[in-house]
Amino acid sequence: MRITFLGTGDAGGVPLYGCDCSACTRARAVADFRRRPCTALVEAGDTRILLDAGLTDLTERFPPGSLSAIVLTHFHPDHVQGLFHLRWGIGPSIPVFAPPDTEGCADLYKNHGLLEFRRLSKFELVTIGNLVLTPLPLNHSKATFGYAIEETDGQRFAYLTDTAGLPPPTEAFLKKWRPASFALDCSYPPQSDLPRNHNDLTLALAIAETLAPARVWLTHVSHELDAWMLKNIGNLPPHMAVAYDSQVVSDAGFVQQC
Amino acid sequence: MRITFLGTGDAGGVPLYGCDCSACTRARAVADFRRRPCTALVEAGDTRILLDAGLTDLTERFPPGSLSAIVLTHFHPDHVQGLFHLRWGIGPSIPVFAPPDTEGCADLYKNHGLLEFRRLSKFELVTIGNLVLTPLPLNHSKATFGYAIEETDGQRFAYLTDTAGLPPPTEAFLKKWRPASFALDCSYPPQSDLPRNHNDLTLALAIAETLAPARVWLTHVSHELDAWMLKNIGNLPPHMAVAYDSQVVSDAGFVQQC
Repeated sequence: MRITFLGTGDAGGVPLYGCDCSACTRARAVADFRRRPCTALVEAGDTRILLDAGLTDLTERFPPGSLSAIVLTHFHPDHVQGLFHLRWGIGPSIPVFAPPDTEGCADLYKNHGLLEFRRLSKFELVTIGNLVLTPLPLNHSKATFGYAIEETDGQRFAYLTDTAGLPPPTEAFLKKWRPASFALDCSYPPQSDLPRNHNDLTLALAIAETLAPARVWLTHVSHELDAWMLKNIGNLPPHMAVAYDSQVVSDAGFVQQC
Repeated sequence: MRITFLGTGDAGGVPLYGCDCSACTRARAVADFRRRPCTALVEAGDTRILLDAGLTDLTERFPPGSLSAIVLTHFHPDHVQGLFHLRWGIGPSIPVFAPPDTEGCADLYKNHGLLEFRRLSKFELVTIGNLVLTPLPLNHSKATFGYAIEETDGQRFAYLTDTAGLPPPTEAFLKKWRPASFALDCSYPPQSDLPRNHNDLTLALAIAETLAPARVWLTHVSHELDAWMLKNIGNLPPHMAVAYDSQVVSDAGFVQQC
């Protein structure tokens, strides 16, 4: 299994429009520090799954036939806005697996074009090529699933955004399932009040400690977290890192724990 | 008054994803033939109005303070999707004038961020800097306004998309108002059936003949119209042209007729 973090930003991204903080200034000067909408590509053999579709240049990144499926965490615009253009294409339909959300986003259901929406149910496995996904309920302002993703050879990875903490059934599942590594929502630096909808670093550290995987990549990162990290380098445990756009996590990172 | 056609495409754009027609093949080979979401910038002195916001890179094109306002024709995603990112910025709010549409698009009203939505009424003038706009009802599948735009020096331009034909009150207004030039929806080549929601070339020619302006630029163009034009070069009257992305129409094009 190979993961590419195509986008690791929160809805505002980095640099944030109009902001001159240290993180935004750095990202304007050096493109490597930019953060686009939170998206990951999961590859296993011929299977290629796009986790979320907030990148607006999907039609240029993924030629027809290059994706096995798109899997959505939820229907907020920063996670689906790339579908508004992609849907009008022609050719083979693209399966789009999504949580049960009767509203969807704008007119995506009504004018689905070449997208073929398929509704998932919590904890009900779905097989896509060489990968088996288990939808995991998360704590967010809209129906949201994280995904436990397992390759046929047993490698296990979990993708857990957008969320503030974890619902007890999801935490219980992951404690038993024991992914070698996961990507985790960490939108903000430590907050004085308990954050809603997204993890701050305090919540993210607590989840990482509870589940104790070999590796944790923090994603859905705001400019505020980036600015905080600039002042607090070295404040993360050695098995945790803030992901960056275009980062590739290769097979070597997925040694199974059990 | 200076108009820049930043985007002249229909919702699918050119090249259309998955299409190998002559127009899409040409646009893949030569970027000048690409068509992005239908958008225009109107400038008059210090006044800069963005007509529609479907371009997804607005945060990069328009630094804070560089736009007097955004004016929307309607809330379909290809006309507003650039706002999903722009809204999360910080700094001065951006006025966004729009037709009365209680639904809007996705969560734009709920989470408006730095956008300040202002509802327009048909035929009620609004002054933005050096420009006076009159909202004109159009025939589309969602509440849609075209705009009659007048500079303080009397130059007149109308922007008429998305529409199939013109509602009689709008046609009557424009006959009397007599814009020197206008941009007009022409999404399709001539169709055998009367098109819905968008003009085909037959409807566009009829509108141009009725209103008889000095210049007409066709916009909201599909790959089908481009492919048809490749086979039918010279089929447009000399005062009409298909606009292209980044085309600038300078003052010289706006000699008032009356």
